[in-house]
Amino acid sequence: MTTTIKAIATKEAGVKLSPITIERRELNADDVQFDILYCGICHSDLHQIKNDFGGSHFPMVPGHEIVGRVTAVGSDVTQFKVGDLAGVGCIVDSCGHCPSCDKDLEMFCENGTTLSFNTPDKKLGGMTFGGFSEAYVCKESYTLKMPASLDLAASAPLLCAGITVYSPLKHWQAGPGKTVGIVGVGGLGHMAIKIASAMEAKVVVFTTSENKVEDAIRLGADDAVLSTDEEQMKKYQGKVDLIIDTVSANHDVNAYLNQLAVDGSVVLVGLPNKPIEIGAFNVVHGRRSFAGSNIGGIAETQEMLNFCAEHNITADIEMVDADEVNTAFERLENNDVKYRFVVDMATL
Amino acid sequence: MTTTIKAIATKEAGVKLSPITIERRELNADDVQFDILYCGICHSDLHQIKNDFGGSHFPMVPGHEIVGRVTAVGSDVTQFKVGDLAGVGCIVDSCGHCPSCDKDLEMFCENGTTLSFNTPDKKLGGMTFGGFSEAYVCKESYTLKMPASLDLAASAPLLCAGITVYSPLKHWQAGPGKTVGIVGVGGLGHMAIKIASAMEAKVVVFTTSENKVEDAIRLGADDAVLSTDEEQMKKYQGKVDLIIDTVSANHDVNAYLNQLAVDGSVVLVGLPNKPIEIGAFNVVHGRRSFAGSNIGGIAETQEMLNFCAEHNITADIEMVDADEVNTAFERLENNDVKYRFVVDMATL
Repeated sequence: MTTTIKAIATKEAGVKLSPITIERRELNADDVQFDILYCGICHSDLHQIKNDFGGSHFPMVPGHEIVGRVTAVGSDVTQFKVGDLAGVGCIVDSCGHCPSCDKDLEMFCENGTTLSFNTPDKKLGGMTFGGFSEAYVCKESYTLKMPASLDLAASAPLLCAGITVYSPLKHWQAGPGKTVGIVGVGGLGHMAIKIASAMEAKVVVFTTSENKVEDAIRLGADDAVLSTDEEQMKKYQGKVDLIIDTVSANHDVNAYLNQLAVDGSVVLVGLPNKPIEIGAFNVVHGRRSFAGSNIGGIAETQEMLNFCAEHNITADIEMVDADEVNTAFERLENNDVKYRFVVDMATL
Repeated sequence: MTTTIKAIATKEAGVKLSPITIERRELNADDVQFDILYCGICHSDLHQIKNDFGGSHFPMVPGHEIVGRVTAVGSDVTQFKVGDLAGVGCIVDSCGHCPSCDKDLEMFCENGTTLSFNTPDKKLGGMTFGGFSEAYVCKESYTLKMPASLDLAASAPLLCAGITVYSPLKHWQAGPGKTVGIVGVGGLGHMAIKIASAMEAKVVVFTTSENKVEDAIRLGADDAVLSTDEEQMKKYQGKVDLIIDTVSANHDVNAYLNQLAVDGSVVLVGLPNKPIEIGAFNVVHGRRSFAGSNIGGIAETQEMLNFCAEHNITADIEMVDADEVNTAFERLENNDVKYRFVVDMATL
């Protein structure tokens, strides 16, 4: 038994999205079903619909920053009731018993994380379909509680952009007394500025765009450095404890490694498609690290949502209607968004 | 006032070493003077005499794994007396008051570490001269106590090769329950196998040389993997907590990043001269790190010497006379040494 719902899909790689119908499973005892009200547009949706990484399956319904209101719950569900706000991010299932799952790192599940779209759907067969659709059905234990105090549309991007920067900031201990660098002011970067500031770190933004310097300060940065200016780059050389590098375009990370204090880390959360070149001296000197981080686990995502509620943090968004998604993807590709598109799914 | 002593120097980049006389300073109140009995030959001596990194000054007396017997001490010296064993490694001075020195990380001194050779000599002017010489004069606080229970010649390489691998093994917490990979079985690699084993980690060696597999086991490794064999490389994929990469030749580190468990680190202690290429997914997936490490501080070097004494660890060495150093450097360049040359300085 399934329910047929409306959605927006791309039928093959790089082709514009258009209306489609898809099936959602009937509720299992441990499932939550909700009507989707808003869904963010993330750069990885763009990569997937273009099949940039390979492994894309079509038709594909993207969208993994999904929020809405609960319409039904299974008989074993205890944490959600009809009418509650609910959210689903990248992860909708994992094995639950491997070393990674045991440590609440479901994104590294050794038996394969089920993502909210474009991964094999263990319940229905086929591939999972994402949030550019009318409704979602998700296991309770992978469904997030969205804070009622935050603007719901603007909190949708927390489910991917928010956790993607919160997790490394937490893991590498951003906080009072630490200087945190943020490379790039986009969907991820603008969230990183807000969250690192709320964690009470000193926040220094590195940007190649002169016109983003002012915006970085407005978003909460203590300082912003034009990374193309060698003189400005000397100011924090050797003084930054942690750098979150949000840039997915190919770029030189050595300049950022050299900003690090002893034992500092540059943590990549973007996905440049060419190998990143690192000079041996830039890590050997100062015992520095070049690391990566990928979203965060379910428990940490809920922790991040609660943290954002406490500090009144949401994304800066531009709302678009369902029939504007293709324009939105085009503008996203040209970095023409401040700083996250969110689709008003009521317009579907 | 200075003392003239015999030494072996190279007069310009790449030219063979030959006898020379150099000056050592008269003892200051905080100095220890010792006759050099043995001095190890490290790959970085070879880099420096060839000016591979730039910044080499000539004439150059290399050698920074220096051991001998104390012949005189300054009036303020309390920890050494005439007749004691003494050692000097890479570091002979630092500012003593910067954040790095405050943390006993003198190798990252923000005001410039004075190395045992080829760095500006703050006392005498000119450049420091290394251990291919009759005697050394060093501040007491940068002079190491060599364990009497160890073969003195075979313990000289601990002062660079030993600390270079001990420090990252300690910092990244090698120990019981951890799987530690060692890439390369050479001067550094063979010490890393011995030390990591003594730390009670499970030690897996990665080597490109079939004939080193057996040797790796003899040195104490629990297993050895031929890194050119894709099948063998599957055995530990995703299971190694820490990899010490001792290879200075250009090589692909992505294969080793993919051996790491979640939160694992590849730590480079070699110095490949071309940038190292890293695929973004190889760090983003599993929150892995590519890090570097450079020798260790003075206190940690003494700790390492004491650890090696406790576990009866020395280097596997080939002893050469002073007039054989050029042949030794040639053989070192061809990786033809098991596993460290040590010069018998009594033959000078």
